[in-house]
Amino acid sequence: MISSVLLGLLGAAGVVSARNGTNRTNLYEGRPLAHLTPPEGWMNDPNGLWYDAKEDLYHAYFQYNPNGTVWDLPLYWGHSVSSDLTNWLYQGIAIEPERDDSGAYSGSAVIDTNNTSGLFNDSVDPRQRVVAIWTYNTPDKESQYLSYSVDGGYSFIPYENNPVLDINSTQFRDPKVIWHEESKKWIMTVAHSQKYEILIYSSPNLKDWKLESSFGDQGYLGYQYECPGLARVPLVQSGNGLTLSNLTYPNTTFYNSSYFNSTSNGKAKEAWVLFISINPGAPQGGSATQYFIGDFNGTHFVPFTHQTRFIDMGKDYYALQTFFNSKHEGDVLSIAWASNWQYGSLVPTEKWRSSMSLVRNLTLKEWAPNPESVQLNLNSEPILDMKPLNAKNASTEVTDFLLTTNNSLSANFAPRINTGIYDFEIVWSVNENAFNNSRLNEWILYIDSQDYYSEYLALGYDTTAGAFYLDRGNSYNDFVTLNPFFNNRQSVFLEPYSTSSNGTNTYKVYGVIDQNIIELYFNDGSVVSTNLFFFSDQNQIRGFETWTNVNGGFKFDSFKFHVLDF
Amino acid sequence: MISSVLLGLLGAAGVVSARNGTNRTNLYEGRPLAHLTPPEGWMNDPNGLWYDAKEDLYHAYFQYNPNGTVWDLPLYWGHSVSSDLTNWLYQGIAIEPERDDSGAYSGSAVIDTNNTSGLFNDSVDPRQRVVAIWTYNTPDKESQYLSYSVDGGYSFIPYENNPVLDINSTQFRDPKVIWHEESKKWIMTVAHSQKYEILIYSSPNLKDWKLESSFGDQGYLGYQYECPGLARVPLVQSGNGLTLSNLTYPNTTFYNSSYFNSTSNGKAKEAWVLFISINPGAPQGGSATQYFIGDFNGTHFVPFTHQTRFIDMGKDYYALQTFFNSKHEGDVLSIAWASNWQYGSLVPTEKWRSSMSLVRNLTLKEWAPNPESVQLNLNSEPILDMKPLNAKNASTEVTDFLLTTNNSLSANFAPRINTGIYDFEIVWSVNENAFNNSRLNEWILYIDSQDYYSEYLALGYDTTAGAFYLDRGNSYNDFVTLNPFFNNRQSVFLEPYSTSSNGTNTYKVYGVIDQNIIELYFNDGSVVSTNLFFFSDQNQIRGFETWTNVNGGFKFDSFKFHVLDF
Repeated sequence: MISSVLLGLLGAAGVVSARNGTNRTNLYEGRPLAHLTPPEGWMNDPNGLWYDAKEDLYHAYFQYNPNGTVWDLPLYWGHSVSSDLTNWLYQGIAIEPERDDSGAYSGSAVIDTNNTSGLFNDSVDPRQRVVAIWTYNTPDKESQYLSYSVDGGYSFIPYENNPVLDINSTQFRDPKVIWHEESKKWIMTVAHSQKYEILIYSSPNLKDWKLESSFGDQGYLGYQYECPGLARVPLVQSGNGLTLSNLTYPNTTFYNSSYFNSTSNGKAKEAWVLFISINPGAPQGGSATQYFIGDFNGTHFVPFTHQTRFIDMGKDYYALQTFFNSKHEGDVLSIAWASNWQYGSLVPTEKWRSSMSLVRNLTLKEWAPNPESVQLNLNSEPILDMKPLNAKNASTEVTDFLLTTNNSLSANFAPRINTGIYDFEIVWSVNENAFNNSRLNEWILYIDSQDYYSEYLALGYDTTAGAFYLDRGNSYNDFVTLNPFFNNRQSVFLEPYSTSSNGTNTYKVYGVIDQNIIELYFNDGSVVSTNLFFFSDQNQIRGFETWTNVNGGFKFDSFKFHVLDF
Repeated sequence: MISSVLLGLLGAAGVVSARNGTNRTNLYEGRPLAHLTPPEGWMNDPNGLWYDAKEDLYHAYFQYNPNGTVWDLPLYWGHSVSSDLTNWLYQGIAIEPERDDSGAYSGSAVIDTNNTSGLFNDSVDPRQRVVAIWTYNTPDKESQYLSYSVDGGYSFIPYENNPVLDINSTQFRDPKVIWHEESKKWIMTVAHSQKYEILIYSSPNLKDWKLESSFGDQGYLGYQYECPGLARVPLVQSGNGLTLSNLTYPNTTFYNSSYFNSTSNGKAKEAWVLFISINPGAPQGGSATQYFIGDFNGTHFVPFTHQTRFIDMGKDYYALQTFFNSKHEGDVLSIAWASNWQYGSLVPTEKWRSSMSLVRNLTLKEWAPNPESVQLNLNSEPILDMKPLNAKNASTEVTDFLLTTNNSLSANFAPRINTGIYDFEIVWSVNENAFNNSRLNEWILYIDSQDYYSEYLALGYDTTAGAFYLDRGNSYNDFVTLNPFFNNRQSVFLEPYSTSSNGTNTYKVYGVIDQNIIELYFNDGSVVSTNLFFFSDQNQIRGFETWTNVNGGFKFDSFKFHVLDF
């Protein structure tokens, strides 16, 4: 579940080592530790994500207003680096707009290894020939700019003939560029936002762009499209043993395609995924990120089905972007902004606002939403390079625990070992047919605030609704009690991870709590829900307790709760 | 906004007159009055909706378990009638299953005027030749049955050669049949639920069905498809004066089609709408009804776009069905179940459970979701044949009211005039650019419970989120405080109803409150949100009060709040 992708240390000249245990005190209290945050000021979309193979270092840029804790112009690209995708170290401003009434809006970065752009000379290592493609926003228009770096991504030089792409629109932004090996071209997806079009351009050199196609009017439209992105994602078999030979996908053209003929060595193939964010107007309220699985031939993206899907069902997951390259070939690493434009500028943090999500590795897996169908589904696996704290009371691990109304699991954490980061994994089994649906049949995990006994997160599963829920509303924090868009209760429908012949269903949830954010990964990441939460003071966790209202109906096949440390 | 479609009285022999003021006391306290409810027991999907032109009477059937207040087998078709689509009178059980371990599941009704089925003789008025097409559910399979009535829809006779359609599936249900005039055939849409397919069949006689096509993998899939339906819906011009010549729809094929060439007399044409309900697994949690606008040629439905849309953004609107025929040609009348399978069997009513939505007339209107696009949108207009109560304090009507922190509107209703039904219409104007988005800038309408001062509904608009919200969580009712799926806060994104040259936006909401249900219609019904709510005791309303936190930023161009009476 938890990948330790990177354990290497930084060695680059001029780059100080990533955050370790001793410099955590430099951060404001209450700040997430394993999630990227700005040192101060306002942050939104992740930008320009890339991996430096020379330095073995990940770079993340972000929409940044260092002059205040709400979005405002001028808007910059802030910059942080990480060697392990868990600890992030701020590096300063990387790109700034030309004028104070304008912004260096969202965009991406590529590594121009072969110097197709002609912007580099031999003094720059091919692995560090980073070019940023971003939207310059002025009161008159949005157009696409290039900037390049000759110092490994710490500073950028504007290309002299900017813009490289201009269609005289005020709503034309968020270019994401990838390299398409088959056609040997750069491919840009960019949002013609209020036309609900993702425009697809190609270029041999990052400077000259040709419109190839557009993809639009698909999915949930909301007010506008933002932050598109194409990624080639590997297909892997899911854990519950579905095989295509047993099940027929409705779109047979899709399943007859070559994507699903595994190679002789059993290695799975791949498909293309197009990401589109919408804001405002998501059905859950405000901002959300959707995706489409399909084929891309170098000019056109064709989805396998016309269904609408959100990569994360929570309220706080927007503007997803994938990294250009990664340490491990085939990894599709991604980061999203862990907030929502409905209330992002009002969340009760001091001096800084917003964090990113954990980095997630994306794969495609088969998944059975019901007994008669199988779907390809985008699967999210968090990367969190931490280990359980080696201290008394810092870990609870139990197997085969039969829940009853008198028998619960609980733990109290000593404040001194409270790092603020926790994870838990619960595998539960239940025969849902045994219950009368005229009442709730549920188990609940209460995660308690250090501050007040009546402040807690409640997470649970109920057989009557067949859904898992999160209630983040039990708090005295004024923002929580007063902001009408910070909805308390959310739920996700879950298909069983596995079903036994006697009708017992098994489900699985992995959760990460980091100060004021909780990320929930169900059934190995087929369903994800990311949500902020706020207690009265600093979000310190006192402990947890489980509860059920049905005797012996639920079994925790496995229950683990850890206090984590770096 | 409120149509008085029918004011006629009933004249049919054997049919008592619809409910009037004096028989309201027969109903349990707390029961909605203008919404169809069962006399006792459990109700879910609306079924077999049809209009009797001979008796000038509307018939509604519904999934019904009279033996308990939760869903259970055997399941019947209950039956109610209405002359005004507001007052409904229960008529007993219309269709029952053959066995106690089975159900007369959802279906529809048609009027076989020309006796294509051969089931009628001349003794039955052509306007009353009603045939029900429904799903017979047994433990082994779901197949489609016919039943016909020779007494105007009060009792049904099973067709002797049932089933008329059987594909040996346990997940094949909810047939909705219409007459397709161009091909002179009956058309059935029926859900192959867990394959995410809507199968389209044709028949000359309602008995012999030929599979013509399937429509699937579109929209939001959830766990399964249910309750499909095709309807021919008129296109009317919207109130905000958009014209197609000014705006380009992304799918130009669509807008170049003959549908959008108005006829010479200016009368709008029409398009087809396909409804599909999904449950569980809607993004809002649980149950939801989506729709697709497109063309139907007698065999195939082709959507104009592949976008996903929900006809109602609230939590309680499922299994929509349209009426076969209506009094006024061109009206597309519809009813949905006003609940959610996540908690429908747990709502705190006594002896009966669930109400239907108000009847809504559907039209297609152009609508601008943002400044650069125009869409065709399904528009919902409630039918509520009631008038403001003629009593002191029963009406508040104000125009051009500038909201300030010291100046609010309020009313207290005397308990003796409290009928339990209210409506309100608010037209508000705001220059959203005048505000600082680092705070909430909102107006709120509090609708107060008779029981406790801290029980209320809160509805409001905030410029920071650009959204309207409803908070139904301020209640001491145990169901509200404890059910984790009865989410408190919901919001809808609103496009301005109109925008002036100085940047002032105008919005509009019409609301109906009937005991424990609130229906909100925004901008003349382009966006709708239907939600149940529960106070501690009987949901009596004490009065209302408005509030704002910005001085002079909001103006109520018009504010009306009425206590309603029959």
